[in-house]
Amino acid sequence: MTHPISPLATPFPDVPQIAGVIPHVVRAGYKDWGRCDLTYVTLDQGTAVAGVFTKNLCCSNEVELGRENVKRGSARALVVNAGNSNAFTGYRGREAVEQIMEQVASHLGCAKQDVFVSSTGVIGVPLPKEKAREGVEKALTAAPCSWEEAANTIATTDTFPKGATATAMVGDTKVTISAIIKGSGMIAPDMATMLGYLFTDAAVEPGFLQECLSAANERTFSCITVDSDTSTSDTVLAFATGKAGNTLLSSFDSPGADAFAAAIHDVCRQLAHLVVRDGEGAQKFIAVTVTGAVSDESARKVGLAIANSPLVKTAIAGEDANWGRVVMAVGKAGEPADRDKLSIGFGGTWAAREGLPLADYDEAPVTEHLKGQDVTIDVDLGLGEGRATVWTCDLTHGYISINADYRS
Amino acid sequence: MTHPISPLATPFPDVPQIAGVIPHVVRAGYKDWGRCDLTYVTLDQGTAVAGVFTKNLCCSNEVELGRENVKRGSARALVVNAGNSNAFTGYRGREAVEQIMEQVASHLGCAKQDVFVSSTGVIGVPLPKEKAREGVEKALTAAPCSWEEAANTIATTDTFPKGATATAMVGDTKVTISAIIKGSGMIAPDMATMLGYLFTDAAVEPGFLQECLSAANERTFSCITVDSDTSTSDTVLAFATGKAGNTLLSSFDSPGADAFAAAIHDVCRQLAHLVVRDGEGAQKFIAVTVTGAVSDESARKVGLAIANSPLVKTAIAGEDANWGRVVMAVGKAGEPADRDKLSIGFGGTWAAREGLPLADYDEAPVTEHLKGQDVTIDVDLGLGEGRATVWTCDLTHGYISINADYRS
Repeated sequence: MTHPISPLATPFPDVPQIAGVIPHVVRAGYKDWGRCDLTYVTLDQGTAVAGVFTKNLCCSNEVELGRENVKRGSARALVVNAGNSNAFTGYRGREAVEQIMEQVASHLGCAKQDVFVSSTGVIGVPLPKEKAREGVEKALTAAPCSWEEAANTIATTDTFPKGATATAMVGDTKVTISAIIKGSGMIAPDMATMLGYLFTDAAVEPGFLQECLSAANERTFSCITVDSDTSTSDTVLAFATGKAGNTLLSSFDSPGADAFAAAIHDVCRQLAHLVVRDGEGAQKFIAVTVTGAVSDESARKVGLAIANSPLVKTAIAGEDANWGRVVMAVGKAGEPADRDKLSIGFGGTWAAREGLPLADYDEAPVTEHLKGQDVTIDVDLGLGEGRATVWTCDLTHGYISINADYRS
Repeated sequence: MTHPISPLATPFPDVPQIAGVIPHVVRAGYKDWGRCDLTYVTLDQGTAVAGVFTKNLCCSNEVELGRENVKRGSARALVVNAGNSNAFTGYRGREAVEQIMEQVASHLGCAKQDVFVSSTGVIGVPLPKEKAREGVEKALTAAPCSWEEAANTIATTDTFPKGATATAMVGDTKVTISAIIKGSGMIAPDMATMLGYLFTDAAVEPGFLQECLSAANERTFSCITVDSDTSTSDTVLAFATGKAGNTLLSSFDSPGADAFAAAIHDVCRQLAHLVVRDGEGAQKFIAVTVTGAVSDESARKVGLAIANSPLVKTAIAGEDANWGRVVMAVGKAGEPADRDKLSIGFGGTWAAREGLPLADYDEAPVTEHLKGQDVTIDVDLGLGEGRATVWTCDLTHGYISINADYRS
C-alpha cells in the first residue's frame, strides 16, 4: 500500500545535528516493511524535556506514561516504534512499553522514567515484546544516522519525510533547534498519529521549555486539522541538551528567552504545516484567518469549524468561491457571531461585508486565487479583537480512495 | 445538475390527506427549473402550530420570523420556496418574507404572523420579490395537489420525494399524522437545508404539540448527520387542525396523549431516516447505538462523534470492520469514557470488550454484515445507563463528486 507523494510536498531541509543528541535507526520488523521501523535517539545527561499529548480519552499506554514522566523534566533517550500504535491493548501493551524503558535504562544507567517511548501504526494489537527487545538490542549499538533517516523511520504512511530547524540568539550564544515529525491525518486504515520531536542544544529549565512548547502548540499543532479526527497517540516532545552553553533559560525574564520561544514557535509552525501538506488526498493548502472574534480562543474555534467543514473543504477542492458554505460553518461553530456583522473573503478579496453580499463583488480574482495551491479564507466577525489562523487541506477523491477503497 | 436516485431510496408511501389541510403547488420560477417551486398549504381556522429550528447562528430571515411567530401557537398557512434559501440577505431578504406573509394573510383574512414561510436553495441572493408575489398570487387560487407533489416541490437536490404517516388512538378517536420532508445533507453547492412539515387532524394545544415535537426532535432529527454541517435554514413545523374531533390533548395527563406523542415520534423518525437515505453519495445506512453512557445526552454526543468521523464513515464505505477508528472517535468525543471499559461491535458481533480485542473474535460474520446496505455499530461505554441511537450514511466518492467536482 503506497500512495503517490503529496503534490504539496517540500524537500527535506538541511536539519543540523544537535550537540548531545544522536539518532539511530534499525529494523525491528513490526510489519512486513523492508525498511527500518525503530528509531532510537540518545540524549546526554542533563537533557530537559517537555511534552504535549493527545486529548483523546482512549489514549495509548505510551501517551499515559509519557504524560506522567515528562513532569520529572529529564530525559536520556527516545524510542519510536512504527507499524504498531500499541493503542487499545490494555496491560499487555503496557508491559511492552515498560520492557523497552527498562532495557534502555539498564544500558544507559539512567532512571527508567528518563526513557520516552512512542508507537504509531495499527490499533488493538499489543506491541510484540520479542521483536521490540531484539530491535532495541540492535539499536543500542547501531551507528548514528541523519535526521532525514530518522524522519523516514518514524513515518508510517506519510508520503514524504518531514523536518524543520531554526536558530535563536540567547545572549551571545547561538542555539539551534532541529525537529522531525510524522503524520498526515490518519492516512491508512489502521495508521494514525502525529508524532513530533524537537531537539535543541539550548540550556533550558524543563518548566520554561514546557511553557514555550505549550504556547507554541496552542498556535500551531492545535490549529491544524486534516479530517477532524484526533489520534489516540498524538505526541510532541521537546528535548534540550544544554550543550550550546548559553545562560540557562528559566523564564521569560531570562535574556534571550523571547528569541528562543519564537524559534520554538517557528519550528512548531513549520512542522504543523508539513503535516497538513501531507494530508490525505490534499491538493491545496488552506489558511483560514478569523479576526474580530470575542477572544483568540473563540477565533480558533470558528476557524476550526470552517477548516473541518466537509462542504467548505470540497468547495475549495472544486475551486468554487462558495462563501455561503463559510457562513454556514461560522454559524454552526457555537461561538459568538452576528450574521449582520460578518465579512468573508478569499485571497484578500471580500465577497461579503457586514452581513451582505458586496454589490460590486468581482469573482474573477477570487477564481484565479482558488486555482492556486495556496488558498486563504478570511473571516471577520466584527465583534472584538480575537484572532487566529488555522490550517487545513482540501477534501478530495484522494481522501476517499486512501480511506475507503480497500479492506485493511 | 441531476444526481442518480439514492440506492437507499424507498417508494413514496400512501400519505393520507388531513382534514383542514390543503396543499397546492405552483411555479414561481426562482430557478431555471421546469417544475413547480412554490408550495402553499392552507390550514383551517383553529390550527395549532409547533416548531423546531436550526441552532445555526447565521440563520435565515425565515427561521428568525418562524421562531418568533410559532410562540403564538396558531397557523393558517405555510409557504415554501425552493431554489433560493434567502439566507444571508439582510433587510432585503426580510422584506421578501414579510411581503409573502402579508399577501397570504390579506387573502385569508388572518394575522400576518399566522403565515409561516420557509425557503431553501442558494445562500446570499435575496428572494426575488416580484417572482414571489406572482407565485403566491397563482397559488392562492391553485387546485389542491397530493402530498407526493408537495414533497417533490419543496425538494431541491433531493433524489427522491419523502413522506411519512402514522395514526394514534386518542380515546375512541383515530387521529392521523401526515408529513413531508426535504433534505439530503447539503447536496449541491448552494443548496442546503432540511425542511420538514407534519400535519395532523388531532385537536392539540400548541404547548403540548410543541412538547411532543421537541421531545421527538431530540431523538430523531437531532440524531441524524450526513456531513456534520448544519444548515442555516433547518426547520420542522407541526400543524394540528383539530378536525378529528378528539378530546383536546393538552398535556401527558390527557387520555391518548402517550399514543399521540408516540405517533409524532414515529413520523419524525421515519422522516429523519429518509433524509439520511438521501445523504449525498450514501451507499449504506448506518445506525450507531451507544449504551452504558453516563447520560442519554452523553450517549448522543458519543454517537454523533462516531457518525461524524470521516474515518469511520470511509471505513464503512470500504466495508472494513475497522473498530480502531471507532475507539478513536469515542475518545475524541469529549464525553466521559474509560478505555478499559469500552466494548465495540458491528452487526451484533463484539470485536472488543472492556478495553481489549476479543481473543476469539471472528471477523467473518462482521465482514458479511458490512457488505449489506444496513450497518449497525454498537458501542458500550460500561459507565452508566445512558443510551442513544444516531443515524448516518457512509462517506463515498459520490460525496466528493457532488460537492467538489464542478463550479457552482
